[in-house]
Amino acid sequence: MNSREVLIEKCLKAKTALTTLAASKGAVRNAAVIAMADALVASKDEILAANNIDIENTIANNTRESMIDRLRLTSERIDGISASLKKVAALPDPLGDGTVWNRPNGLTIRKIKVPLGLIGIIYEARPNVTADAAVLCIKSGNCVLLRGGSSAINSNLAITKILRDAIASVGLSAECIQIAEDTSREDATELMKLNGYVDLLIPRGGASLIRSVVENATIPVIETGAGNCHVYIDSDTDLDMAVAITVNAKTQRPSVCNAAETLLVHKDIADKFLPLAANAMPRVELRGCDKTLAILSGIKSATEEDWVCEYNDYIFAVKVVDSIQEAVTHINKYNTKHSEAIVTKNIASAEYFKANVDAAAVYVNASTRFTDGEEFGFGAEIGISTQKLHARGPMGLDALTTIKYLIDGDGQIR
Amino acid sequence: MNSREVLIEKCLKAKTALTTLAASKGAVRNAAVIAMADALVASKDEILAANNIDIENTIANNTRESMIDRLRLTSERIDGISASLKKVAALPDPLGDGTVWNRPNGLTIRKIKVPLGLIGIIYEARPNVTADAAVLCIKSGNCVLLRGGSSAINSNLAITKILRDAIASVGLSAECIQIAEDTSREDATELMKLNGYVDLLIPRGGASLIRSVVENATIPVIETGAGNCHVYIDSDTDLDMAVAITVNAKTQRPSVCNAAETLLVHKDIADKFLPLAANAMPRVELRGCDKTLAILSGIKSATEEDWVCEYNDYIFAVKVVDSIQEAVTHINKYNTKHSEAIVTKNIASAEYFKANVDAAAVYVNASTRFTDGEEFGFGAEIGISTQKLHARGPMGLDALTTIKYLIDGDGQIR
Repeated sequence: MNSREVLIEKCLKAKTALTTLAASKGAVRNAAVIAMADALVASKDEILAANNIDIENTIANNTRESMIDRLRLTSERIDGISASLKKVAALPDPLGDGTVWNRPNGLTIRKIKVPLGLIGIIYEARPNVTADAAVLCIKSGNCVLLRGGSSAINSNLAITKILRDAIASVGLSAECIQIAEDTSREDATELMKLNGYVDLLIPRGGASLIRSVVENATIPVIETGAGNCHVYIDSDTDLDMAVAITVNAKTQRPSVCNAAETLLVHKDIADKFLPLAANAMPRVELRGCDKTLAILSGIKSATEEDWVCEYNDYIFAVKVVDSIQEAVTHINKYNTKHSEAIVTKNIASAEYFKANVDAAAVYVNASTRFTDGEEFGFGAEIGISTQKLHARGPMGLDALTTIKYLIDGDGQIR
Repeated sequence: MNSREVLIEKCLKAKTALTTLAASKGAVRNAAVIAMADALVASKDEILAANNIDIENTIANNTRESMIDRLRLTSERIDGISASLKKVAALPDPLGDGTVWNRPNGLTIRKIKVPLGLIGIIYEARPNVTADAAVLCIKSGNCVLLRGGSSAINSNLAITKILRDAIASVGLSAECIQIAEDTSREDATELMKLNGYVDLLIPRGGASLIRSVVENATIPVIETGAGNCHVYIDSDTDLDMAVAITVNAKTQRPSVCNAAETLLVHKDIADKFLPLAANAMPRVELRGCDKTLAILSGIKSATEEDWVCEYNDYIFAVKVVDSIQEAVTHINKYNTKHSEAIVTKNIASAEYFKANVDAAAVYVNASTRFTDGEEFGFGAEIGISTQKLHARGPMGLDALTTIKYLIDGDGQIR
């Protein structure tokens, strides 16, 4: 079989298992999730042994320490993954709920929530995503086709085997969970073209993975995680709050998508604010526009590339603007529609910013770092959508469902 | 300027107009809709003169009468279009509504409905779609880029000019409504690739148009209207009801997407039911499986192609099945996920059918012909989605919106 045929065989096995899963009661799916969470802890030795092979192979390839850290599992990390899976079991059932209405001709229409079907998850060398994504799919009645990075393949295969055994232990089919064993680039491209087999593909990872999926996929995709986020400091602002929000948005975890990448400052407050902000984040490399350079001497000059870049690092582009309108225009030109913040005391500025900035999440006097399923109160998230269709912003279990209309009649015709 | 540049210029004009439109009150958008509806009636002569040019050009090309009929406008038809636009004005405002909640850290999160932005509508030679689509977009705060078929270009330009003047008369920008004047195939393909300019593309038309959009578009698309729908007659069935629903689903308007294309009949009732059904629709050409041919002598034999085909005509494929399971398997293999019906007296059969058939709308004891925005009580519809993401089934104004999270804090950081 070629790689497409191997993938299709997996899809067909999943689709056969789907009927029972999609029709199963929420209590059964929750039992499956808990069994999966418990099995990971019970099988730590097996997982850690497989993970150790991945780590050794990766070190042999001289990979960066940050990448090895993402790949590494420990006993504590497995406990953490298991605990977060149990939280998913405790979330409300996303299926079945709906509305019902009657039509004048006597038809009763019921709009209910149903699973999407088979969801593909394509991700990098983070073995925690294997368990996390599988559980969110099962909880929402979907089968899953996992496709992780090549350097985590031993960890992913071990975790998947444990999850498959666990789901079978509650009477659902192990075939609900599939994993692509071939981790070549060609195989990933085949997966992106499984029209008619995979109902939705969600990429979880860095900009290059997401770009590759958007460019190559012919199946439906939800774009996630690209975050060129801005903090705008308005002229009428509490300076302490402005510094605290700026530093938090940039430095609390620079590698994530909701961290800020560009700081915009109103010209009337730039003289006071910029030196305070620069002092408060000494580790951060600032790259400024000409007006910024006139205030903060000795920093690098920002180029067009800096306005576009999602650094995911301790680097911050800085621009002084003449007005809130200029700030909003800059944001709407360069942002990835993820998260944007204004710090202001002025109601009109706050309202203007909220109405005119095009993004999933728009903050007034708070850090962009709150764009997150847990922080929004949704529980576990499957990713943060930067598109406008189907789901926008942090995606909870609802994003993994679609609707179905069930219509009962007694002989109605038109 | 090349055709891509011409289209981009139109998009940029629309995007500039969008800010005011998206922020406008529902009353202003409703006033725009009413002004548009009135202007069409007031400018009948102009529209009919332009339409007459289209009709003459089309007749000169020897086109089928049914196509000319779709293209033709009359004074009565313009009154009808205007009346249906006024119904749109009366629908609830799809924007702004939402939910609000507080987080333990004091953040207030508001989830509101906002317009998608600029919506492209690509359609065939039906000038009524020009007014219809423009009004649904404006009502939901979206700008629109219209792209109709070449044979209706004079009608479409006349209607668009009238609509643009009308929207300007209530203080919104005429640039909210754009029309592609170049109706070449190449220009359509350019439109499908306007990433970053067009937020959503909706094709309205036949299977070949929709296939072309799905294959060529790189911008987000909602697939609409492909309908290979089935009626399944269960073993325990009221024969009169079964015949009435079958005949209605096939013949009441065979050219539309929610008409039935294949009839499935349980073997235990086929002997009685099939002769009654055949007699009740003498105009319909039946094409049957071997078991059907044994009951209805003299009809054509059905091939694999018949199970796949959306005839949109007085042709009906007929298959006798051994069980409801076989019926559901056949449906899920061949259907376009649009509308499916069972006729049965048996509760277990009804529940099995509703749970296991994968389609936007699943009917028990009613005709598939009810899958329609008006019939569902949504008011005007923008199309019937056959995909699972974003919108499924009849799409009302809600399908033209997305969400936005507005978060108010007083200095929250993580």
